[in-house]
Formats: sequence, structure tokens, C-alpha cells
Amino acid sequence: MTANSTRMWIGFLSDYGLSDCHVGVCHGVIASTAPAARVIDLCHEVPPGDLRRGAALLAQAAPDLPPGVLLAVVDPATGPGAGTRRRALAVVAGTSVLVGPDNGLLLPAAKALGGAQDAFEISTRSYLRQPVSATFRGRDVFAPVAAHLAGGLDPAALGPRVPVDALVRLPQPVARLTAHRLEGEVLSVDRWGTVQTTLGAKLFDDAGLRVGDTLHVHCRIGVVRVPFGRSHADVRPGEAVGYVDSAGLFALARRTNSAAEELRLQPGDPVAVRLPASMDTTR
Amino acid sequence: MTANSTRMWIGFLSDYGLSDCHVGVCHGVIASTAPAARVIDLCHEVPPGDLRRGAALLAQAAPDLPPGVLLAVVDPATGPGAGTRRRALAVVAGTSVLVGPDNGLLLPAAKALGGAQDAFEISTRSYLRQPVSATFRGRDVFAPVAAHLAGGLDPAALGPRVPVDALVRLPQPVARLTAHRLEGEVLSVDRWGTVQTTLGAKLFDDAGLRVGDTLHVHCRIGVVRVPFGRSHADVRPGEAVGYVDSAGLFALARRTNSAAEELRLQPGDPVAVRLPASMDTTR
Amino acid sequence: MTANSTRMWIGFLSDYGLSDCHVGVCHGVIASTAPAARVIDLCHEVPPGDLRRGAALLAQAAPDLPPGVLLAVVDPATGPGAGTRRRALAVVAGTSVLVGPDNGLLLPAAKALGGAQDAFEISTRSYLRQPVSATFRGRDVFAPVAAHLAGGLDPAALGPRVPVDALVRLPQPVARLTAHRLEGEVLSVDRWGTVQTTLGAKLFDDAGLRVGDTLHVHCRIGVVRVPFGRSHADVRPGEAVGYVDSAGLFALARRTNSAAEELRLQPGDPVAVRLPASMDTTR
Repeated sequence: MTANSTRMWIGFLSDYGLSDCHVGVCHGVIASTAPAARVIDLCHEVPPGDLRRGAALLAQAAPDLPPGVLLAVVDPATGPGAGTRRRALAVVAGTSVLVGPDNGLLLPAAKALGGAQDAFEISTRSYLRQPVSATFRGRDVFAPVAAHLAGGLDPAALGPRVPVDALVRLPQPVARLTAHRLEGEVLSVDRWGTVQTTLGAKLFDDAGLRVGDTLHVHCRIGVVRVPFGRSHADVRPGEAVGYVDSAGLFALARRTNSAAEELRLQPGDPVAVRLPASMDTTR
Repeated sequence: MTANSTRMWIGFLSDYGLSDCHVGVCHGVIASTAPAARVIDLCHEVPPGDLRRGAALLAQAAPDLPPGVLLAVVDPATGPGAGTRRRALAVVAGTSVLVGPDNGLLLPAAKALGGAQDAFEISTRSYLRQPVSATFRGRDVFAPVAAHLAGGLDPAALGPRVPVDALVRLPQPVARLTAHRLEGEVLSVDRWGTVQTTLGAKLFDDAGLRVGDTLHVHCRIGVVRVPFGRSHADVRPGEAVGYVDSAGLFALARRTNSAAEELRLQPGDPVAVRLPASMDTTR
Repeated sequence: MTANSTRMWIGFLSDYGLSDCHVGVCHGVIASTAPAARVIDLCHEVPPGDLRRGAALLAQAAPDLPPGVLLAVVDPATGPGAGTRRRALAVVAGTSVLVGPDNGLLLPAAKALGGAQDAFEISTRSYLRQPVSATFRGRDVFAPVAAHLAGGLDPAALGPRVPVDALVRLPQPVARLTAHRLEGEVLSVDRWGTVQTTLGAKLFDDAGLRVGDTLHVHCRIGVVRVPFGRSHADVRPGEAVGYVDSAGLFALARRTNSAAEELRLQPGDPVAVRLPASMDTTR
């Protein structure tokens, strides 16, 4: 382990859950390999195999971590899900390196860190735990590699360069300005029932929608009118509100209870916001 | 960051839950601000907005932490709950500093550390993450301030002094000796169904109740007779027992199953213990 | 605290859960006692009092941790479960020391680390938190002792030596080769519904069963035929497969859904695999 401490931090996200020792074992492998590394657990309750959710969480957390390594393991191919085994990647973005499967999980976070600059397929055996099992790549591949990187290893030592353009990408979530509407979808629902959408603040600016406006939101149960505020504190208990959340994305919340439940919305559902009449050139 | 390491420890409690990256992002902000700080996660599964529970947990944990910073975020005003936004506080107690909203959450822990000696309203912008969002004060205000304090910052640098008497307090939970009874309420129920009450050991001393006595406990379902023991190990499987728990509070437990379920008790419910006849001057 | 850093790591497993501060308080006690110690949380969601599950998880995680201390608290005697209070132990195995109750929890992990070489009954008061409560031995006994050990304390200083043969052992889980079958039981079920059995890879070798064979598995619902593969990736969505998992144990999985649910299997249930005809000398 070199004295390069600029990468001593490892942010760790997975779908392993906390009911067994998968996460702890990965910590153990890291501690054995790079004792000076320090691990920040981001989330291990990503629903099993939910790449879309894992990628979104990782991308939203990435900018607030110190430069270092991002270790992410959500892999429908190693849980008993669908799909074939993806190659293992190290992706350089900004001053950080992302480690995980080549299934689209890492790229939104790489983008949030300034964009993927370089990628390597992890194949150098000496950086892996031996033997490499068929079912626990977090322990055998991703955690030891993250530890070596935290210890200062050059990512190029991990294996052959892969063109960034050749990496697997997730379908881009819908988020666009059309002639009549902002069209997006539900990205996540939190423990308070707040519905986070894919619609960023800039789209609302472009659409001429401002805080204080009344928004017409098209969703599963019909058209809902909500004030465009700054937080749920802007409305009375039981009322709904729309606002740009702490990740810069449009969210729907209700004060005191669950917007997701009232609007019957879940991740992937379409959501649209009607443009103000002045913007709608078709009227 | 100064060499002041007497406050390098940050105990962290919140109602953020573990199903997204809120907790991890706060860790990231702390690591970026004060890399030498070390964070102890106390509990992040406080029920959303449950100030009473958050305050009780924090107060019970505080005496067992090394001197340092206590970072606590349970805030019905920033979850989609009731209430208006509370100012952000740093409260000095003993050799520690508590950081969180001015909603009563911090004061029981301050008391457990020897009492609040000083308080400051957090307002100096340079110690906050910019921009400060309307919905994630843990990331933008409380975590960065906790990190600066762990790095040795004088709390007085955070903003204007607030008189300790002017801080918001939670209603004092009922716990008193009356002519006939000890009157308290349920403070919490743990994963074994053990019912922790607000009644401290000293009240039992004052009431002349001793281990070995049979207690008459008035609760939701009527009057229950339980032995006053030292732990659930004092009774046979299926039987109930009362004892002073590891936090110094009277608890009701059953061996092998849930006292809370049998007695239909939940936090906030009244519980009373009848005085021994010799103490009851009205008989 | 001495400069002995070979034991600075503490792996920590318990049945405390994460909904209150029990785990955090143990971390606080460790930090107060041995600030240089570093704790790896293995799992705190062991079902309350489930010794069998706790012991299996600890044993599977132990080999991947750096040498140090293993702190394990699953204790039906201190949760409101069955049984009497077990003495507190420090067990030396390989270059590590295991700390926990004398109820069988520690020995499978000691075996995985090369076998228990020495054991001591924890009784020296000066290494405990005072007063020792009747209901929170993690805080008062096990965590402070683990911290002292991480700081370099000689385990022999903790109290009188106990013969390793006199330690309480869990019933050995069934795992044997008979004339007709491999007979084992279900050890655990993970969040994907994968069924881990007690049958190790060597038994399959001994039985002449090879990857590529079709296995006849006797379980609760009858005889199930599954391919002997390397992971769930070897079958099509919805199909079942048997393989040796990352802990070296035979597991049953289904791709895309839960094998445990389909086969109605839970921990403790018997599972048997029929021998190939050539091995079955009774045919």
C-alpha cells in the first residue's frame, strides 16, 4: 500500500441487505487488504437487483463524498435474477474510481463526477481474492479491487482498457420538455412517501414554471393540482405540494402523509407537468 | 482542522432510515470536512418525526459515548410532518457539543451529560454546505457543522448565543410519586417486546418498593401482578416480570414472548404501580 | 492501551437489531476504552436469540476478517428467551480472540479460525463497565473486554482458564454421507430465497456427485430434480438449481424467484440428496 491517501475513502453501495454478513465480509476483505482505507456505507437496502434504483442513489450521493473509490454491487446476474454475468469494471471519473459490474450501475454516478474518462476490465488475478466464487463477486472481486485502489493502485494495472463508449448503459429515464408538457417518470419513493421524479430544475426553468405557480400534474389517478413550493412546509397538513428536492429533482410530497400512496405512484410510473398556457404554442 | 482531538467522535442519530443514502451522504460531508473525525452511528431507524423516541434514545446513549459531538436529526418540520422550521442549534453540555434542530430533541441528552451550559444558533454561512436546501438540513447544516466542531471549532463561532432557557422543550414525560401510586408512561418498546417506562429506579426506592415484592401494575388491560425482579431470567417461560433496566428505568418483560403485545402497551400509554399498603397514607 | 495493533480490528455480530441504540452504545464503549480500535459490523439482524443462525453467520464471516477480536452477542438468556445466564468467555483461536457468552455461539467460528486453543472466563472486574447490569451484557461486559483485547490485553488477564472441552457446544447440525444419501438440513435462507444447507462440497466429492449431474433432492414437498451447477446463472428464469455456494456449502436457488418459498423450506428442515446409482451399494 502506497502513501497515496487521496483515495483512502471507499463509498459502498449494494443490494446485499443487512440480514446476513455479506456487507461485513466485504468490509473484512477491505480491512485485510488496505487497513488504512475508510469505508462509508451509502446504502445496502437497494431492492435486490434493482439497477435503476441503485444507479440513481449512487449518482445522487457521489458528489458529496470525498474523492476516492465508489464500490457498487447491484447485479441481477449474481442475485438469482435475470441476465448473464457482466464483466467487472473500474471506471475513472474526476478524481475518483468507480468499481462494479458493467451493467449500467456506475455510469450515472460517473457522470455526476464529471464523466467517465477511462475504464478497465478487472482481470489481473493477483488483485482478487482466490478462489473467485461464482456467487459472491463483492467479496472476491469488487471489494479487494476497491481496497487496492484505495491503497493507491493505478486502475490501469487491473486489466485491459475498455472504451467508455462500449460500456453497458441503462435506458435513459424519460425527462423531456415537449410542446405541451414536461414528461418524466417516478425515480424513487422515500420512507415519508415523497415521490422523486426524473424532472430536473432546469426543465422547469426552460418551461417557464416558477415557484408560486399552480402545477397541473398528470399521473396515474388523473390530473392533480399542486402548488409549486419549496418544501412540504409550504402547505397545510394533508395537502400536497411539488418542489425541487435536495438532489435538484422535482418531487411530490404531502404534509403528514404519503404522496406516493395518495397518488398511487411507484418507481417507473409516468408523470407529466402541464406547461403554462403562455408556453404551450399549440393552444 | 486543528489538532484538537478531544472532540473527534461524532455520535449520529436520525430518522433517515437505511433504505436510501441520506445517512451515507451525511457521512460523506463529514469525511470531506473533517477527515480525522470518526462517526458512531447510534440509530437511524427512529420512526419518522418521532421526537419523543429520538430524544429518549439519544439521552440513554449519550453517557456511554466518548466526549465529542452528538449529531441528531429528527425533525417533523423537514419530514413532511407538522410544524414550522426550527432554528439550528449547537448546545454545549459537559465536554460535548450537541447539534440539531431547536425542537426539544437535544435537551434530554444535554441533561444526561450534565446539563446544557450554552447554546448557539447556527447561522455562519461559511460552516454550511452551499446552497442550503429546503429539505435536507442534515446534509447542508447539521453534518458540516458537526464536522467542523469535531475538527475543533469553537461553537461560539457558529452564530449568536441563545439563552438556554429560551430553547424549545418537549413536554416532560409523566413520572411521579402520588399518594397511592407511581404514575408514568410507556417510553419505548424494543424488538423483544420489552416495555420501557418513564419510571426511574429512585422513584421505586422512594415508594418503598423492593426487588422481591409483588407489583400491581395498572395498565390498559387492567391490573397485572408481576414480581419485581432483576431481569426476565427471574421468571419461567411465558411469565411476566418487572425490573429496572440497563438505562435505570422500570421495564415490563415476559420471558419467551412479548410483554407489549400481551399488555397491549405502546409508547405514550399510561402505566402506574400501586404503592405498598404501608406507604399508602390514605388507606 | 499498548501499541499492539495486530488486534485493532473488532468484528461485531449481535441480535440487537438497528431500531434502537444498543449497537451504537457498544461502539461508544469501545471508542471510550480503545480509541484506536476499529469495528466492523458483521450483522446485527440475527433473529433474537437464534444461536444457530448467529453461530453460522459468524463462522462464515470469520475467515475473511483481519486478525483481531470477534465480539458476538446472541444470548437467549439475556433476551427474554429461555435458559439461564451463561458465563462470559474469551476464546483464543489462531491469531484472534472471540468474546461472547458460553452458549455455543463462538465455537464454530473458532473452528473456522483453526480451532479453539484456549479459553478464559471473563471475571476481572476492572475490565468491565461498572455497574454490570442484569440485562445489557454487550455494553457492560463483552464490548469493554473486546476493546481491552483490541488494545493488546492478554486474554489470560480476564479471568480463570476454562478447559476448551468444558465449553458449551451447540448440537452439531446434521451433515453426513449414508449408504443411500447425503443427509443434511437447511442452515439459512437469504433475501433472495436461496436455501443454504449444511452439506459441504467435500461430501459431494465423497459421494461421487459432480457438476453437470442431475440431483434428486428430498425435501419437505417431495423429491425435486435439479441440475448440479455453479450458480443460478446456469438455469433459465423460474428454474431451480443446486450449487456449492461462496461459503463452500450446498445451496438451492431459483432464478428470478425464491427457492425457499417454492420448496417450503426453512432453517432446520431436513434435506437429502440421493446418491448416484453406482455409489448406492444397496441397489
